[in-house]
Amino acid sequence: MISVNVAVIGMGLIGGSLLRALATAGHWVIGYDLDPATRAMARTGAAQAPKESRWQVAPSIADAVVAADLVVVATPLTAVSPVLDQMAGAGFAGLVTDVVSVKEPVRELVARRLRAGGMRLAAYVGGHPLAGRETAGFAATDPALFHGSAWVLCLEQETNLDDWLTLARVVTGLGARVVPTTAEQHDRVVAAVSHVPHLLAAALATAVADPLAATLAAGSFRDGTRVAATAPELIASMCGGNAGPVLDALDEVLGRLDEARDALDSDDPIGAVRRWAAPANAARTAWPRGWSAPRQIPATPEALLALGDEGGWVTAIAPDGRTVTAARPV
Amino acid sequence: MISVNVAVIGMGLIGGSLLRALATAGHWVIGYDLDPATRAMARTGAAQAPKESRWQVAPSIADAVVAADLVVVATPLTAVSPVLDQMAGAGFAGLVTDVVSVKEPVRELVARRLRAGGMRLAAYVGGHPLAGRETAGFAATDPALFHGSAWVLCLEQETNLDDWLTLARVVTGLGARVVPTTAEQHDRVVAAVSHVPHLLAAALATAVADPLAATLAAGSFRDGTRVAATAPELIASMCGGNAGPVLDALDEVLGRLDEARDALDSDDPIGAVRRWAAPANAARTAWPRGWSAPRQIPATPEALLALGDEGGWVTAIAPDGRTVTAARPV
Repeated sequence: MISVNVAVIGMGLIGGSLLRALATAGHWVIGYDLDPATRAMARTGAAQAPKESRWQVAPSIADAVVAADLVVVATPLTAVSPVLDQMAGAGFAGLVTDVVSVKEPVRELVARRLRAGGMRLAAYVGGHPLAGRETAGFAATDPALFHGSAWVLCLEQETNLDDWLTLARVVTGLGARVVPTTAEQHDRVVAAVSHVPHLLAAALATAVADPLAATLAAGSFRDGTRVAATAPELIASMCGGNAGPVLDALDEVLGRLDEARDALDSDDPIGAVRRWAAPANAARTAWPRGWSAPRQIPATPEALLALGDEGGWVTAIAPDGRTVTAARPV
Repeated sequence: MISVNVAVIGMGLIGGSLLRALATAGHWVIGYDLDPATRAMARTGAAQAPKESRWQVAPSIADAVVAADLVVVATPLTAVSPVLDQMAGAGFAGLVTDVVSVKEPVRELVARRLRAGGMRLAAYVGGHPLAGRETAGFAATDPALFHGSAWVLCLEQETNLDDWLTLARVVTGLGARVVPTTAEQHDRVVAAVSHVPHLLAAALATAVADPLAATLAAGSFRDGTRVAATAPELIASMCGGNAGPVLDALDEVLGRLDEARDALDSDDPIGAVRRWAAPANAARTAWPRGWSAPRQIPATPEALLALGDEGGWVTAIAPDGRTVTAARPV
């Protein structure tokens, strides 16, 4: 068990839950949020927490990062740029990660700043815990939110492996499963399995404007539109912030819906829809898969990225940092 | 409380649950299913049920309908035609309803048969309980399945109001809320809030063919694809059996997704997606609505259909059949 001094910038559902989870895991933690009411709520929460797992709340980003070795940027994508400005202004020179749901845009923001100078980061490792909910704000936070969740940590050409392993230790210490992949692969994949589902839910949700439709809407509508209740700002930040990959993934779904259209418009709509729906039924009933017994693999970028490509994950890092405990779906 | 002799043809999730619910409500009930294993399971279930709420299981459709006043056709759409043939062959001359998820096609099958002669039905009243699940078969049946569910009973120009009220008494006696509307309106509305959601779920479900995608898929994928686990035969029967209205509803959703595509492809994708997603968020967070205090309305076709247009429902029928207890969303 390592203990790290962590600053969490942004205390919404993800940032606030992370603050509490890190404190519970024994790290020294300090949080900041632009919203004074959120800071007040977080201070009250800290006072009510057990003494050994309290966190602090800073009045500014500069105060938050001054004693931190690691900063977690837990704001919406649109706020990342000003947060990086203020961290640079405060002279922060440690390790940075984030929990933003798109990874290439954040990586580019950091790289542009490093190229322009004025920032003295030791390293940046992009992260994304796959643990969203349709609720928001500090009041909805849960220190157990990440337990059993997948948590992407990006492993790029430029990534320092020791920094990646440090973050992987912190994240696996919260009970999450670390998935090694690149920002590019991450953005392509979450476009398909997370961002496009939000667009489909939103496209469906307005059907209940008709009062009879609102009364007859049942389980398939309820579940198919659940994430349309997500704040439009968050949907926009996810989908608009990942516009290229989301367009590609949306076009794939639109292609399948065009096939469904052709099936409905054919001479034998029942038979044609049955043939069209069969592969989807097979894919959905086979998901989620089980997973292999844990085994040790080398802690090299090649082995870790190969694991990620297979949909595998890391649950622990050996004390010497030479191997990791890995599992994969079977 | 009235007691009716009911035959239920088809003992899958809906038919089997109905058999049990009717028996629990004190009706004399007999069931039939084409599948001998289902009949055996239903017989075992009856033997294990409390004596006062047992049902019988018939070896044929003719045996099932011989002593019935009311027959409920609870088969897939594709089996309705042969079931009607056998009912006609057995000389059944009572009241018929069904629980098929599309209403115009069943209405046409019945009307064609009546025009051709050889069928001596007292009346047909189309029905649809909005109480599906992604599980299937007699093993999944639940006598409380309809409690609180909406249950459409079609009220057409040709419908005999007394027959409609008899069925409404039986259905409200199971704890369901009866929604009066026409087959045409029903098919249009369920296309949008039930059938198209199944197509969207199926179009999304194959995304997890990529192993990394299967690992990163979380809540939005799980809920957005839940009904893709429905048997392809059922999805085909619902969507293909209601092809015209489903095409119209699918085109509306495709139109909204094209707007999302334009938003993603614009100069300001985040702002454009936020504006696009806002009405969906408002619609989804306002659903489901609350409802008014119950009040008595006249049991006339005009008043009942106006109630249905407003998304309202009937929870009880006055003993004299002149008024019904109604509520509507507020």
